[in-house]
Amino acid sequence: MALLSPTLIETGDLSITGSSGTRQDRLFHAIRDKIVANLWPMGGRLPSTRKLAEELSLSRNTVTAAYEQLVAEGYIESRLGSGFYICVDLPDHYLPTQSSRDDSRPPAIAQALDLNAPFAPGVPDLAAFPAAKWQSLLQRHAGRQSLMGNQDLQGLAVLRQALSDYLASSRSVHCDPSRIIITAGAQQALSLALLATLNRGDRILMEQPGYTQMRKIIDWQGYQLQTLNIQPYQGLDVNSVLTSESEALYLTPSNQYPMGTTLNTEQRLKLIEWAIAGKRWIIEDDYDSEFQFAHRPYTSLQGLAGQMGCDDRILYVGSFSKVMFNSLRLGYLVVPSSLVSRCLMIKDALTGDTQAHTQAALADFIQEGDLLRHIRKMRRLYKDKHRLMLDAISRFFGDQVEVLSQPAGLHITLRWQGGIGEDDWAQQAEAAGIVLRPLSYYEPAAHPTRDWQGAVLGFGNVATDAIDTLIARLAALFHHQPERSTSSESA
Amino acid sequence: MALLSPTLIETGDLSITGSSGTRQDRLFHAIRDKIVANLWPMGGRLPSTRKLAEELSLSRNTVTAAYEQLVAEGYIESRLGSGFYICVDLPDHYLPTQSSRDDSRPPAIAQALDLNAPFAPGVPDLAAFPAAKWQSLLQRHAGRQSLMGNQDLQGLAVLRQALSDYLASSRSVHCDPSRIIITAGAQQALSLALLATLNRGDRILMEQPGYTQMRKIIDWQGYQLQTLNIQPYQGLDVNSVLTSESEALYLTPSNQYPMGTTLNTEQRLKLIEWAIAGKRWIIEDDYDSEFQFAHRPYTSLQGLAGQMGCDDRILYVGSFSKVMFNSLRLGYLVVPSSLVSRCLMIKDALTGDTQAHTQAALADFIQEGDLLRHIRKMRRLYKDKHRLMLDAISRFFGDQVEVLSQPAGLHITLRWQGGIGEDDWAQQAEAAGIVLRPLSYYEPAAHPTRDWQGAVLGFGNVATDAIDTLIARLAALFHHQPERSTSSESA
Repeated sequence: MALLSPTLIETGDLSITGSSGTRQDRLFHAIRDKIVANLWPMGGRLPSTRKLAEELSLSRNTVTAAYEQLVAEGYIESRLGSGFYICVDLPDHYLPTQSSRDDSRPPAIAQALDLNAPFAPGVPDLAAFPAAKWQSLLQRHAGRQSLMGNQDLQGLAVLRQALSDYLASSRSVHCDPSRIIITAGAQQALSLALLATLNRGDRILMEQPGYTQMRKIIDWQGYQLQTLNIQPYQGLDVNSVLTSESEALYLTPSNQYPMGTTLNTEQRLKLIEWAIAGKRWIIEDDYDSEFQFAHRPYTSLQGLAGQMGCDDRILYVGSFSKVMFNSLRLGYLVVPSSLVSRCLMIKDALTGDTQAHTQAALADFIQEGDLLRHIRKMRRLYKDKHRLMLDAISRFFGDQVEVLSQPAGLHITLRWQGGIGEDDWAQQAEAAGIVLRPLSYYEPAAHPTRDWQGAVLGFGNVATDAIDTLIARLAALFHHQPERSTSSESA
Repeated sequence: MALLSPTLIETGDLSITGSSGTRQDRLFHAIRDKIVANLWPMGGRLPSTRKLAEELSLSRNTVTAAYEQLVAEGYIESRLGSGFYICVDLPDHYLPTQSSRDDSRPPAIAQALDLNAPFAPGVPDLAAFPAAKWQSLLQRHAGRQSLMGNQDLQGLAVLRQALSDYLASSRSVHCDPSRIIITAGAQQALSLALLATLNRGDRILMEQPGYTQMRKIIDWQGYQLQTLNIQPYQGLDVNSVLTSESEALYLTPSNQYPMGTTLNTEQRLKLIEWAIAGKRWIIEDDYDSEFQFAHRPYTSLQGLAGQMGCDDRILYVGSFSKVMFNSLRLGYLVVPSSLVSRCLMIKDALTGDTQAHTQAALADFIQEGDLLRHIRKMRRLYKDKHRLMLDAISRFFGDQVEVLSQPAGLHITLRWQGGIGEDDWAQQAEAAGIVLRPLSYYEPAAHPTRDWQGAVLGFGNVATDAIDTLIARLAALFHHQPERSTSSESA
């Protein structure tokens, strides 16, 4: 949004107070407070880094770094060749941690970019969703008075029945409606799974790189994270699990996130045995296994255990974000009978029952066959997109990058050596309006053995005919390798 | 549902396995497993308690107790003079702990009764809600693709803006959209408020009797509950707060739940001062203050503090369950700026963002004036219902019960001495299809000084012309005082 003659911000009364934090931090907070308090007009232009550095007797590097952080968190924006401006649409981008789910970008990268921008992982094709059908189902239930009062904490019985049938036939999950808990999104299912099985200080094994949103619960609740290094193509080293004394294992066995490997039946059996023998828990996150392009998906780990009559240590987590759309915010947890009442106790305390009308509409969507139809259609569409992605990557990158992930799901994982750093590339992509997730985002600390660069591209919500252009743009950044540092600064 | 010639269940293969639990427990589980596995036909008749006791060589009391538990949890039903039958609508009443929110009945009382049956507290008039208007708003947004991807974790900016305006004008709440966090129901707002401010082991003051759902979080998270005894008509003893070293205070200042007292401005100011001076937290639960029939509501505690520029220790929790309907599952939390990012961090880990289309519809519902219109209409309706309740109680009970609660909100609190016990009365009401909440439900332990009986009646969702009949039915039970024990057994 171009503003005519932007106000130059008067920074005379800006002072760096307090003594905690670096000077950069204090400057960042001082400016942010002005913006948040509406004391500086939206669209106003900040003094150049050189000018402010002089005024405040700070080094120019300090000011530059503070400005960059303000840009990264969406308070100000940089306009090439013109300077730094206070962002106009403050309320939308107010907070440093506003974004959610796995699809949030790393905190180091600007928040102003749309959460669902091209290549954001975990976003399905939103335009292809049968919105009219969904609207009519919502309409069918939205006025039902019997759904307006307090509802079953565990989820509507009709939905649990429909889901039970679907899971049994599509994912070989061993369950009945009494073992399903409907949650307000899969993240709630993951947190319930942890809170119902572990005590503070308990150990949990988790893939590295792995699902960042899971790590947030682990960190916040004070569980001991024990990482399992995922090797390209090989995936999980099952032996390192078998020798572990951890109380629990969290994993994505059908399409390791984000490395795109899969566990075969033999490996799954070993893990099940480990859990049963040691009375440990396995939390299976089956976030996108509906989308396998090369072969039929493996039976879920939970279903495999169920076939042998020993699924009482396995919790199965599923999401509707990938097969329908993200903001639906419905997920589910399939637990052993022994855990049902404990999970419900925690759900009751933390959040209560889940929105009823949407559940009723979803039950119909499943029961009337719409979900399966949509999944089949999307499997074809994503398979096409995946092929177009591979083609474009091959054409624009040649052999400079390698695709690690199996043909499945909604994302592609790249590896390369030498050349641009993954974090730099991601930052430049961001500036170009593209989400490129660096692999570092999925690692709690620097990976001990990784001597290569990696990044994840979600192709679910990218238009088929935009793939070439976007990959070309990424390739240009990749090959150009502009310097990092303060090259974008202009004032 | 009457079935012709019900099948008599063949119990020949029923065996009481395992050695854990009492014989009653094991019998209960053995029968439940048969029902859940669909091995016994729905509607089938169970053998009489005498016959089954003989078959299994158990005492008849054991069988009777197991049957009663099965009735209580909704697996079987008792038909007067005819025997026990397997419930036809199993999925709806499957689980012992299915109920949710404050409006769940105490565990000791049967769960088969509809959660929103007459006099269930906390349920608004569902028939009076403008469902058609709500449907059209949902319809307006349900197909919007821009709302289908990942959303702002804090809540849609349009909703926070609309809510901020509403809260400022209607509840004198001191806030701006950046301090509002939209939650999936008020229960989530309450749990976030606690989790963001307290550490395990910290002390929290809470009214006794008080809101049971709050106690569940406190217990589960291992905070130290310190009770503040609420006296009829007097309410909270503010001095007992002022001398406390607790880290936090949770309260319902505008309509104490369930005793229906209110804090005046002087008392509120003292509490604010206590919190500020000692760097303590106050969590203000303003669940139904829109409905005051005798006078204008007091300024919210948060708003009062805000007027003095010292609201940075106060968290304000609000709900749409009472002003709209329960299953909407949207609530909100207004927090000091210093707590926003911590609350969002926890929300991100535990549950993620909140359903977007409903938020967008709600924003319009507020902004287009529908919410205020509905509240005004409901205030008149509830005022009428409240008067009818008082009339009926006076007519059918005379001076045998006393109404403690102020003319406000959606419930009436009764007190009496001598005569029937509150728990017995509640159980008998339950059998008659009426929710009568005994006061013991709101107390963590036996009240130290209470030498009277009490109960709560929610009148929000009771039809105006049903009030007389229902109160008459309760009065008959009250006066008749039938014995407790197993008088309902028929086989």
